[in-house]
Amino acid sequence: MYYQKDITRGVDGTFMWLMEEIGELASALRGDDRENLAEEFADVIAWLATIANVAEVDLNAALVAKYGSGCPGCNRLVCECPNSEKP
Amino acid sequence: MYYQKDITRGVDGTFMWLMEEIGELASALRGDDRENLAEEFADVIAWLATIANVAEVDLNAALVAKYGSGCPGCNRLVCECPNSEKP
Repeated sequence: MYYQKDITRGVDGTFMWLMEEIGELASALRGDDRENLAEEFADVIAWLATIANVAEVDLNAALVAKYGSGCPGCNRLVCECPNSEKP
Repeated sequence: MYYQKDITRGVDGTFMWLMEEIGELASALRGDDRENLAEEFADVIAWLATIANVAEVDLNAALVAKYGSGCPGCNRLVCECPNSEKP
């Protein structure tokens, strides 16, 4: 949707937009506007996908590779790692 | 996969983990390890989905609502908004 603009801007510039949306998400999480909160989640995902495109990373493949077979730590579909481990 | 742990931790605690992964992503974007970069993207998405679960937001629905019909600004599938606008 925005590929040409994204490539022109590059990874770093795009990352700045991601950070702006992360801030808006943090703010929305403190409020009660559910519709705005949903929009901010969508915006963060959109910018993440944008950076992945500019960095030429296949986001779907990345997700399946890391989480497709259950928890990377204990391999269960419902995680059984000890609480002290990074979740 | 991690729901019980996530609910116990809550939104704010989970947001801290998201920020940690965002930092790891920024670092990976500066390096050449493509496999690690893909993993970091997967981790960020995973944590974002986690926060959405804890905040009871349907992430799929949020994405479709905001971007399902093309650019929210100009409604085209390939964006034609002026460059001065927030992309």
